Order: sequence, then C-alpha cells, then structure tokens
Amino acid sequence: MLSQAPIKSVLLTDGFLYNKNKTNQEITLQTQYLQLLETGRLYCMRMDWKDNMPNRPHQFWDSDVAKWIEALAYSLASHPNGEFEKKADEIIDIMESSQLEDGYLNTYFQTVAKGKRFTNLKDDHELYCAGHLIEASIAYYLTTKKDKFLNIMCRYADLLCSVFGKDKGQLHGYPGHEEIELALIKLYRLTNETKYLDLATYFVLERGKQPNYFDIEKANARNHTKFNNYKIPTLKSYAYIQAHMPILEQKEVVGHSVRALYYLAGVADVAYETNNHKLIKTCHRLYSNLVEKKMYITGGIGSSLKVESFSFDYDLPNDLAYAETCAAIALIFFTNRMFLYEKDGQYLDVLERALYNGVLSGMSLDGTSFFYSNPLEVKKQAVDMDVLGLKSNMGYERKKWFGCACCPPNIARLLSSLGSYVYATDNHDIYVSLYTSSTFTNKETTLLVKTNYPFDETININMDQVCNSFNTLYLRIPSWCSNYTVKVNKKNIVVPLEKGFIKITRSWQKDDKITLNLSMPVTKVMANPKVRQNINKLALQRGPIVYCLEQVDNSDDLFSLYMSKDDKFTIHYDQSLLGGCTYLIGNIKKAVSSHKLYSKVSPIKLEDTTIKAIPYALFANRAPGDMIVWINRRFL
Amino acid sequence: MLSQAPIKSVLLTDGFLYNKNKTNQEITLQTQYLQLLETGRLYCMRMDWKDNMPNRPHQFWDSDVAKWIEALAYSLASHPNGEFEKKADEIIDIMESSQLEDGYLNTYFQTVAKGKRFTNLKDDHELYCAGHLIEASIAYYLTTKKDKFLNIMCRYADLLCSVFGKDKGQLHGYPGHEEIELALIKLYRLTNETKYLDLATYFVLERGKQPNYFDIEKANARNHTKFNNYKIPTLKSYAYIQAHMPILEQKEVVGHSVRALYYLAGVADVAYETNNHKLIKTCHRLYSNLVEKKMYITGGIGSSLKVESFSFDYDLPNDLAYAETCAAIALIFFTNRMFLYEKDGQYLDVLERALYNGVLSGMSLDGTSFFYSNPLEVKKQAVDMDVLGLKSNMGYERKKWFGCACCPPNIARLLSSLGSYVYATDNHDIYVSLYTSSTFTNKETTLLVKTNYPFDETININMDQVCNSFNTLYLRIPSWCSNYTVKVNKKNIVVPLEKGFIKITRSWQKDDKITLNLSMPVTKVMANPKVRQNINKLALQRGPIVYCLEQVDNSDDLFSLYMSKDDKFTIHYDQSLLGGCTYLIGNIKKAVSSHKLYSKVSPIKLEDTTIKAIPYALFANRAPGDMIVWINRRFL
Repeated sequence: MLSQAPIKSVLLTDGFLYNKNKTNQEITLQTQYLQLLETGRLYCMRMDWKDNMPNRPHQFWDSDVAKWIEALAYSLASHPNGEFEKKADEIIDIMESSQLEDGYLNTYFQTVAKGKRFTNLKDDHELYCAGHLIEASIAYYLTTKKDKFLNIMCRYADLLCSVFGKDKGQLHGYPGHEEIELALIKLYRLTNETKYLDLATYFVLERGKQPNYFDIEKANARNHTKFNNYKIPTLKSYAYIQAHMPILEQKEVVGHSVRALYYLAGVADVAYETNNHKLIKTCHRLYSNLVEKKMYITGGIGSSLKVESFSFDYDLPNDLAYAETCAAIALIFFTNRMFLYEKDGQYLDVLERALYNGVLSGMSLDGTSFFYSNPLEVKKQAVDMDVLGLKSNMGYERKKWFGCACCPPNIARLLSSLGSYVYATDNHDIYVSLYTSSTFTNKETTLLVKTNYPFDETININMDQVCNSFNTLYLRIPSWCSNYTVKVNKKNIVVPLEKGFIKITRSWQKDDKITLNLSMPVTKVMANPKVRQNINKLALQRGPIVYCLEQVDNSDDLFSLYMSKDDKFTIHYDQSLLGGCTYLIGNIKKAVSSHKLYSKVSPIKLEDTTIKAIPYALFANRAPGDMIVWINRRFL
Repeated sequence: MLSQAPIKSVLLTDGFLYNKNKTNQEITLQTQYLQLLETGRLYCMRMDWKDNMPNRPHQFWDSDVAKWIEALAYSLASHPNGEFEKKADEIIDIMESSQLEDGYLNTYFQTVAKGKRFTNLKDDHELYCAGHLIEASIAYYLTTKKDKFLNIMCRYADLLCSVFGKDKGQLHGYPGHEEIELALIKLYRLTNETKYLDLATYFVLERGKQPNYFDIEKANARNHTKFNNYKIPTLKSYAYIQAHMPILEQKEVVGHSVRALYYLAGVADVAYETNNHKLIKTCHRLYSNLVEKKMYITGGIGSSLKVESFSFDYDLPNDLAYAETCAAIALIFFTNRMFLYEKDGQYLDVLERALYNGVLSGMSLDGTSFFYSNPLEVKKQAVDMDVLGLKSNMGYERKKWFGCACCPPNIARLLSSLGSYVYATDNHDIYVSLYTSSTFTNKETTLLVKTNYPFDETININMDQVCNSFNTLYLRIPSWCSNYTVKVNKKNIVVPLEKGFIKITRSWQKDDKITLNLSMPVTKVMANPKVRQNINKLALQRGPIVYCLEQVDNSDDLFSLYMSKDDKFTIHYDQSLLGGCTYLIGNIKKAVSSHKLYSKVSPIKLEDTTIKAIPYALFANRAPGDMIVWINRRFL
C-alpha cells in the first residue's frame, strides 16, 4: 500500500493546478465563507434556531461548514490565514459547547428535529454530516496541530461506535448517504483505534442485508408523527442508496452517484485495510462497470438527471448529462484509494480524466461560481426555453450557490488538497502520480518538478536533496500517452513500463536531472458504439485534457460540424486565454443547410471551416452560447 | 375554393383506412363511451355536481363529450347505431334542459365555478368547450338531420356574439385555447349567419393586441377570491397561447401546439372567407415555418415535452418527442383547409404524412388504447428507469385513458370522418385527395376506387355513374412519388402535373376505367443537417408510410445499426401482420461493441445484419421494447 503525500510535504509552485489551487485559496474560500455566513449555515451550530425563525437548519448544513473548514485546513498548509483560522477556531468552540454530554453533535437534530436522532438514517444525512465533520477535524489537526476539533469528533465517533453495531441493543443500521465509512477509516489510521475500523467495516458490510434496515426503520418511523412522510425510495427498491443488496453481491454501480462513489471509497478502504479478498474483487468489479460503461469522457459520472443517479450501462446523454461535480470528486476519492492500494496507474488515468475535465469544469475561472451538473453539450436555446422543464441545475452559467450546496465546498476542499495527490511514497520509493510544477520533500529527498503539464509535454525533475536511503523513483506514464522518452542527466534511458509507471532505480545524487517527455498529439476519440448518444461522433483530446467547442470561438452551428479522423489540428498555447491554456485550431467541414426539412438521401453538402477548441473544463467563462464535446464524424 | 366531400357521400370499402375507421366505429366508440360514463363526464351536463362529491367536473370535460358525439355523428353516416344515437339524444336533451335562459351552457361554470363565467378565458377552456360543442352539433345535424343540438348551440353562439366584440359593453377578449374560431366558421357556413363569421374574425384578429386582454382579465380576476391563483403564463409573455402579438405580425408557430394549429385552422378559415390577403400571407408564412423547421418526419408537431409546445426551429428530439396526437390531428385540420382554399396538393402531402404516421400511431391496433405523445425513438430501459423523471405521458405502451383526455376522442372523431378527406369537389370537377378503396357519389358521378394504398402502388378507379356535366377528374400525385403512370381504359395518357394534381378532362363514359400507378420504392430520407438530432441518420419511407424498427423484430441493439444509402431492401405484404401491412427487409450493418468505453479513432467494426422495418404508426402493438425511426448513417 502506498502512502499519499502529506499535504505539508508538497508545495505547488506554478502552472494549471497551482492556479486553480491559488484561486481557490485566495477567492473561493472567501466567497464561500460569505455564503455560509449569509445563509445561516456558519453559526448554525450555536443551536439557537427556534421554530418560525428564518434560516431553518437543513439536514446537511453541518456538512457544508465541515467541508469549508476542511478546505481551509489544507489551505493553511501553504497559505497561512490568521483571520480564517480564528473563524474556524470560533466555530470549533461553538461545536464544543454545543456537543451533548454523550458526544452527539448535529444541528438539525438539536434544533429542528429534537429527540429524533438516528430515527431516519435513510433520508436525514445524520451520519453523512458526522463523516464530513470527522474528515474536517482530521485535516484541521494535521495542518494546525490543534486537537480540540479532533477530540470533539472522537467523542462523537465513540458515541457512534456504541450506538451502531451488531450487538443486542445496538442499531443495526447504516447511513442513507454514505461518507462516514471513509471518515472512520481516516480516524482509525490517525488514532489507531480499531473500533473505528470495525464500525466502518460494519457499515460497509451490513448495508443491504435482509431484512433491510430501512424497512425496519420505516416501520418504526410510523410511530413518529414527524416522520409520517418517511420518503419512499425514488428508484425501485433501495438501489438508489446502494442498499438493495449486500455490496459483495453488487454487479454494477447504481443509484445516486455521489453516494455510490463515497461508498466505494469506503468499501475500498475497508477491503484493503482488512484484506478482505471478496471485497477487493467487488471493488474491481464495480470499478470496471463504472469506467467501461458508465463514465463520461470528462470523468463525469451519474448521467441521469433524475435524482442525480447512475443510468443503465452506456446511457450517457451529452445535453442532459447530470455529471454532478461532487460525483466526479468522489470518483477521485475512490480511484486515488485504488491507486494507493494497487500501485496501479490505471486508476490515476481515471483520476486525471476526472480532475482535469469533469471536476475543474465545476468552478468558474474566477473561483466564485459553480456548476452542479456538468453537461457535455449545451444548446443555449433549449436551456433558455427550458424545453424539457428541467432547468433547475442545468444550464450554461455557473451559479454562486445552491440550496443544496454540496458541490461548492466540495470542490474547494479538493482544490485545497491538490498537492497531496501529486506524490505518493512506498517506504523509500517515490511515485510521481500527477505532473505539475511543485516541490516534494520527505526524509529521503527533495524533488523539484517544473512543467507546464497538462499543456506541455516536458516534465523536468531535479533532485534538490537526496539521502542515501532513497532508492526508486516511479514516474507515471498515462495511458493516453503512446510515445514517451525519459532522460537522466540528459541521457536517454530505457526502462520497462509496468502498471502505468516506469521505475528508475539508481544511486541518486544531488542535482540529478530527469527529463520526461510525454508526447501529446491531438487525439480523436471515439466511444464504444453501444453509447448511442456518441455513435458517429468524435471528441478531441490532447494529453489528459478533453476539448470542447464553444459558440464564442466558432461562428458556425456547432451541431452541423463534421470532423474526419484525418482532419489536421495545430496546437497553440495562449497565456492570456482563460487563465492560460492550450487551444486547438482545426480545418474541418460543416454541413450546408438544405431548404427542405426532409429529402431523399444524397451526399451531405460540406464546406470547409475552421474551428477552435478549448479545454472543456474552461467552458462557460465567456459569452454564453452553445457548446459541444462530441463532433459529428465524417467518414472519408 | 374546393368543397370537402360530405361525409355521407363517401363510403370506405376496404383497406388500411377502412380498417381503422371500422375499428373506431365498432370498438373505440364503445370503449370511450364507457370511459366517459365511468369518469362522470357523460352526464356531467346534468349540472348536479355539488361540492365534495366525487368526479368534480373539469374545465374541459364538455369538450370530451362533444368530441365523442361528433365522432358518433360521422359514424352514423355509414354505421347506424340506434343505441348510441339514443344516448346522444339523451345527452342533448340534458343539454337543452341545462342550458340557461340566455343560451349559456358549460358544466364547469354551472357547477364548480358558478358566477365566474367569462372571467378566466385564458385558463378555463370555456370557449374551447363551446367550440367543440358547436362542431359536434353541426356534425350531428348533418348526419341525423335532427336540429335540437344545433339549435342549442346556435343559442349559445348568439350569446357569445352579444358578449364578445369590439363594442362598448362587450368583452374584448378571446379564448386561451383556440377552437371556437373554426367552429364559428362552420356554423356560419351552415346557417349563413354572418355574425358568426364576424365573431370568428374578431377572435382571430383581436388576439395578441395591446393592451393584452389577458392582462386586463388578470387584473379583474384579482377581485375574485376564486381566481386569485390565476395562472401565470408558462412561457415568456403569452407566446404559449399565441397571444404575444397579433397574428399578422407572427413569424413562427409558437407555444402549445394544439392551440397553435387549431388557431391556424381558424385563421385560414377567416383569411379565405373574408379574402384578407395579409391573413392569407400569414397562413403561408406560418405554414412554411412549420413544415420546413418544426415538423417530425411522422407529421408529429410540438416537440417540446414542456407543456406540450413547439420548441425552437429544427429542435426535433426523437426520444423526447412530445408530438401529441391531438397536434397531428390539428395539423390535418389546418392543411386540409389550406388544400381546399389553395387547391394545392402540397398541403395534402403534409396531411397524409400526419395521418399515416403521427396520427394513426396514436391508437392501438385494437382501438382501445392511446398515445398522448408519439416518440420517434424508444429506449425501453430509459423509460422503465424514468431517467429523466418525465414519465407522465412518455412511454412505449398506450394507455386506456388520460386525466386530460383530449386525444382519445379526438382521434375517434378524425377516424369517423376519414371519408370526408378522400374527395373534394369544385363545381363539376372532382379531386381525389387520398387513395383508399371507397365509393364517392355526388350529382355528377359515382366513382369506385379500389386499391391497397398506402401499401400498394396501383389505384383502380371505375366510373360507375357519370352525368354529362361531370368534366374534370383531378388525381393527386404525392410529392414523394417521382414516377407514376396513368391509364384511361388501359391506354397510357400523359397529362401535366400542376400543384400536386394531374388533371384529366374528357367526355367521361360509364365504366371508364382509370389506372394510376404511383411508384413506391423504399426511400431513405435524410433530415436538414440543422436538425442536430438526426444528423448522420437516415429514415426509411415508402409511399406515405414512415417505417420504424422495433426490438421485437430485430434482435440487435437498434442504436448500433448502420445503414448506407445503397443498402438494399425488399418489400413484403403480410395480411396477418398488425392488421395487414407492408414490412421491409434490409441487409445493413451493425457496429460491433468494443471493450473500451473510449479509444483512439479507428474504423468502426461492422458486421452484416438483417433488419425488419414496420410502419411507424403500428409500433407498440406487440412485445414492448426499443424502437427507432432514424438509423445511423453509414458512409461508403
């Protein structure tokens, strides 16, 4: 098992991820702070809300605050911020004084639904909030060394360990929205308290067993007038919340996509932590189903507009893609774990696909507005007319905030923590997982990476410090890359590629220089023909970046464009475009409109045209208009 | 101006339309009678509903009953039915006794919303119901010669003429759902009362003028507590109900598609009846917009799922097609009028497209269940999972009835009246508009037509009776037909084709025989590339029939099929298939699924496969499954 680099050991120094991280720390944390403040979330843990007051606490408000503190915590590792740290401490003090004697802490159940704790695990996000608070407390402890928040959450976790479990008198339940599982594993790893691991294991394995806990809970809830609207599952059985059958029996990822992937992250943690081979096989099985049948080219997942969930295999509509930002983030959580456990770069390929495309699309260039869903196609007229009556979260303009505000602070905590995804270690070995200008320091070495990846092919690594104990450097070769060269001190070396990494073992010296070149031609990608929405279409990818066409760059009707596999593209980098990015210029064709709506088949009349493609993640930052990822395929 | 053949002058004798007409008369009228009875509609005009009783009358219930009586009336011309005629008489007696002194008659406003008549024209379907009742009363008078119902409706129409109009003290309003306009014109033509024409003209031209009547009505309605929920327009301004601007200024068909087309039918009536050239130009302008930019290949219109309305130009989604049955029927009403006024077969091409495809799809083979919306593509899994949360009226199974039951009795009255669309006359000339086995008798002649059209190419016409005064026979050459021959008494004749008709003028003799052959090859149709949903796709058409592929006939994934313009099809007629129809067998290709979801572009791996296509109108009458009209295009 690899160790993820501690957030403090990595400093991003320049480039695309650095810029995102910087915007997040300098702008996003501030704007989200104000949103939390204005909506009543920030101080809701004072537990002073009373009936008929405004800003009635919602079931998931604690998680919004938790994610913001977590985002702040990671940020503090590289960006000290005394003002916000003081704010966080203030909120933590409030938590401490609001925490009940037995360790319980939840705004909704201490104000709105008093006395109803643990009676509606299915709908009320109670353990979900606990999980986010635990994650936040760990992050805050790791970067500030202050343990008050951590101790609060340990007390709460201890309560959960006594309330839930297989013993008589315990609740044999588990959360309606997974999250606590992965949080408990983190807490176990920090504290070495095995009861946290045990509870996570219990939650993972108990889920979906018969008789179904939610049926029992529902029957009990009938006694509560407050819960006589106990919600029926939105989809058949409990598949929507992955509780339709035990995880070991599940063959495909189903239901609410964020729930499903938070769950899988926790499942993977438990599987490898407890060395449960059947559970490990389950991770592989569900991973395969996900990446072979249910993932957008952008790494977006959960294609169904209805209740934010997975659809059936190969159902990946572009215009109606839900592809929630949180779900792509959750995919990063899961694949990052699988990479660490399996030391296999294939998981990073998926992680990178999600990060550079379907996650980063979730935030505006200026860091102040957010997509909840990330469509792969926008027909502006359809959105404006709302022809499907589905506007709610769809569209071509990011929003400042949401009633259900899970995505904004989720992307904030991911961006704050980006550094920790760049390197991993295995005893004396170092894995470079993502390429971005940065320094990494541990006991063995200080690495200094310089690159304009993902826009540039070249990565320069300098060994600023080396101890004798440092042995092997693993460099990731992404699966999209079919040509690469690697030099050590300007000499080409040939090393085998295994599980997505090349392994360089030598007696390292200070100022050894490694130069990696990952060839990045413009690639036209096709989807499995079973994806009916993309048949006869091609997408543009270069390196890990998926490109799109926006109306603002292309005067033609985007939907009438035709690209063949041989159409030529040139690659341009513009420092002033969208914060600095590569764009592509191509000479392709467009279909000429006919007069008649329907006519006997004839060759399609085509004209030459030039298109400009920009990274998908950066769309919707200029004039609103149409956008496409998938372009009609022209056959020669 | 041509005269439509009176329903009594035409007898359908055999074939596809005859079968539909027969099923309708023998089955559908009966099942709909039971639905009307069971839901409380049939006798609601007793006006005996009181608060808190079940079956609260709805705003449009009168129209459901009216359409059923109208359907029955046309049916009586060829299928005497003493029992139902007695039922109709009974309901008419009830209407007579419920009609108020001043002529007013409306169930909803005489039971549920007493004292509120004419205060919410926008939402409450009051004039719409009046229109349907008028149409029914005329039909009933024409086939039964009984005038009680007609007199009732004349009294009601007289009231409307006094209430509405431009004079002081009159309401300067018009209906929220058009229909009354075309009904008043019918009444004018029957009675020669010009005030009915005047009121129709007023409704047509007043609509959408500023200040908007609905704004005035809304302000007034605020005084009624009952109407404090006066609905805001669902779409921007009043475009949803075509009242956003005067008709003369309108450039495109917009809003609710049934409203729009009922309106256009009335607009056309007023335009030609009053010889208003600007209004005639408007008809042409909106017709062009409709058939060049907003119509499905099936003649379905109103593509937007949201509130049953038109979308923007070229937005014709196949899976989410609304394409309400009533809207395609309304398209028949409009195009039939335009044909009669312009003597131009192009309108019949559209009428025939709608009739044989998007209208007939609206009813099951057995005549007992109905589609409200008529999608051009079904992915069964998507419907079953309801991935868009839009199930309501979508799907692959027809329903017995609907809460808003406009479509079932609308298709019933159309099918009952089919005979009247087959022929038209112009003084001593006869136009054969649609080809179907039938006899037509008027003062001039008796025509006997024998054909298995639309499945067979040959139409045999025999002059059973001829008077000297009979002069010219116009035979329609559909625009889909590029090769035809016509023989008189077995001798080929060459006659010019003008406005969709060939004109045969001669001294007709008894038993003159005309044989028309309309070549019907299998045609692959492409859509204007501006229709983004159909780019790179082809549809199959033969004669006026659009074909589809159903899962039950085709084991392959329908969405992976590939058809080229040169793929060969054979044509088969099967008397036992779906009530007797032609199906097509073709050798095309299918794409082979790849292992990877995304891969670098390569040739698509194709295998040979055989497909079977059936008429679109007959889909969803066997095992439920996927269905497509548009097939992926393979380029050679």
